[in-house]
Amino acid sequence: MIYFDQAASSFPKPKEVTDAVVEALTKYGANPGRGSHALANEAGNKIYEARVQLAQFFGLADPRRVVFTQNATGALNIGIQGLALKHGDHVITTAYEHNSVRRPLERLKSEIGIEITYIQPNHNGEINIEEFEKAITAHTKLLVVTHGSNLTGAIIPIEVLGKISKKHNLIFMVDASQTAGILPLNMEEMNIDLLAFAGHKGLMGPQGTGALLINKNVELKPLITGGTGHFSEKIEQPDELPERLESGTLNTPGIAGLLAGVLFIKEKGLDVIFKHEQLLIDACKKGLKKVNGVTVYGPDEDIKQLAVVSFNIDGVDSQEVAMILDQHYKIAVRAGLHCTPLAHQSIGTIGQGGTLRASFGIFNTVDEVEKFVQAIDEIRAGYLA
Amino acid sequence: MIYFDQAASSFPKPKEVTDAVVEALTKYGANPGRGSHALANEAGNKIYEARVQLAQFFGLADPRRVVFTQNATGALNIGIQGLALKHGDHVITTAYEHNSVRRPLERLKSEIGIEITYIQPNHNGEINIEEFEKAITAHTKLLVVTHGSNLTGAIIPIEVLGKISKKHNLIFMVDASQTAGILPLNMEEMNIDLLAFAGHKGLMGPQGTGALLINKNVELKPLITGGTGHFSEKIEQPDELPERLESGTLNTPGIAGLLAGVLFIKEKGLDVIFKHEQLLIDACKKGLKKVNGVTVYGPDEDIKQLAVVSFNIDGVDSQEVAMILDQHYKIAVRAGLHCTPLAHQSIGTIGQGGTLRASFGIFNTVDEVEKFVQAIDEIRAGYLA
Repeated sequence: MIYFDQAASSFPKPKEVTDAVVEALTKYGANPGRGSHALANEAGNKIYEARVQLAQFFGLADPRRVVFTQNATGALNIGIQGLALKHGDHVITTAYEHNSVRRPLERLKSEIGIEITYIQPNHNGEINIEEFEKAITAHTKLLVVTHGSNLTGAIIPIEVLGKISKKHNLIFMVDASQTAGILPLNMEEMNIDLLAFAGHKGLMGPQGTGALLINKNVELKPLITGGTGHFSEKIEQPDELPERLESGTLNTPGIAGLLAGVLFIKEKGLDVIFKHEQLLIDACKKGLKKVNGVTVYGPDEDIKQLAVVSFNIDGVDSQEVAMILDQHYKIAVRAGLHCTPLAHQSIGTIGQGGTLRASFGIFNTVDEVEKFVQAIDEIRAGYLA
Repeated sequence: MIYFDQAASSFPKPKEVTDAVVEALTKYGANPGRGSHALANEAGNKIYEARVQLAQFFGLADPRRVVFTQNATGALNIGIQGLALKHGDHVITTAYEHNSVRRPLERLKSEIGIEITYIQPNHNGEINIEEFEKAITAHTKLLVVTHGSNLTGAIIPIEVLGKISKKHNLIFMVDASQTAGILPLNMEEMNIDLLAFAGHKGLMGPQGTGALLINKNVELKPLITGGTGHFSEKIEQPDELPERLESGTLNTPGIAGLLAGVLFIKEKGLDVIFKHEQLLIDACKKGLKKVNGVTVYGPDEDIKQLAVVSFNIDGVDSQEVAMILDQHYKIAVRAGLHCTPLAHQSIGTIGQGGTLRASFGIFNTVDEVEKFVQAIDEIRAGYLA
């Protein structure tokens, strides 16, 4: 089995991640921060260690401002809804956003009356950074962008957007679901106010994990209220972080696994990981472009991008090709809209049921990529015959 | 180590649970319902199997109305906030509720202006069922109760409340965090409209799991919106369940573990589990009541209750006793308010920093209980000396 669906969830995980999950389940399975005993303390300490490591890794001074969630969607919703935007407030975002950004924004638009500007990429999938500054009005409150497209692999220059946000006093939120654990991210240096990501993609943690990192200048209204372990006597949700935004029992085994994933990534080095993924994406794009009757979307070859490629065999439904790849070649890719319909409108693929998407990770090899390109060539030949 | 903090999180887990988590992490770690390939389908099938088993176990006809959450708090918030109560709507609940029910309700009271009636237990921790019917007004919309107190172990007769709710056309929501996997629960037979529970307590699943089961007559507004795998082209959150209330990647390893936990419970039999826990709680309450200078709270001995006992050594801070139990005797109990401050007001323990709470599970033994009672006797003697 060749697994090229890394943008949906990384697989396999490093052995350390599974070991950490098993350790949590079998050695200290108590409720973290809820007990008065050694096991609960051990669980609580492990979670605090994960906060410390994530805060360090992403350039956030205070580990208590690392809020754990079930997934990136949870983190994005806590951020977007928590800002308590008002009627007439303006938000700038991109056509590349995942539905986990677009749907919460569109809901605020229809329910509260916020205004939204979607910056469009060009036909190569690149976004012109000047468009952002042009879109700013006196009512603009929030700039929320994905760090990298899950459709084309295009990277958004967030360090530039951070400067623009700071200059115009906007809140800057980054969806790093596709880049955390792959590209360098530093909240302080890049002026990021809110950083949301999944734990189970580039950070190599288990599914069921995600986080929202919150800069000191941002206050959020909780989406969920409930038991917080501490401050139990208060009727209201406490103001203290992380408790304010983290009601209920955390996913201790998942967070322990995420911690192991982050340590694995740190040990490996982001530069090594990114360089390896570049090898794979280069080989893949070059290979696919040589196949007649295949259209490859996204940035030109000389532009740095994520290890995600979207393409189609001309005139053939993407789901059909994915099924052949799966059943005949044992190659796992994804077909369809990838939860990002606006981006498909931009690159013109909404009409043919989206695209095929191959996405690579640290454990994939050039040999696998070559087998994949060969398979696409054979499938295309089959349709021509 | 003797672990008597089962009401916070069950430990240890059956071996099958850990095995299922490891299998999910190592064999089919793809994104469930998001792919077009074998691994994603395997993950999706496992989650669907968990929905089917939970629906059957709790008497819900349609498995698509099983919504997975990170914890019981998430499930309770989706239910309570999702009902879209209006100014002047009246809710009846109990003083036994966990902060995960009380805080969302109090927030709706302060932000929207709902009215709340808290039914009080008597000094033994029993709730008089007649109080509920007396509290119903023309504006009452929702009856939300815990099935069993995490403080005293008192059981609320929800089958009676289900009939009352039906008669008065109220929505009936049950927090089964302390009882799922321990007491029989059948949504259809008991007229339960919304059933919320944690996966990591009586159901023996991993932390990071919970669920909300939704009867066919109830519609909920989503709390979180985002990617749903299917229906990606829609700007709005789709109406279909479970997608409507389940945005973002699910905790596949956790849900696989929860499924294994439910199968373990079914195989064992609820009657066997409950009988075993009765042995332990009887031994404990009888033992503690023989110790001079110890006050035991909760139902009288002849009343059926959960395997949770709250008590204090008279005049001694509960945290202090818990620390001695932990460090000197290696016995894990919980001290404090247990996220349920109103219940402490009812039994009169808010002034002394709450209570000590010992809670038992299927893997605990009478021998452990006897050691524990002996330890309490020694600690009490130490304070007298």
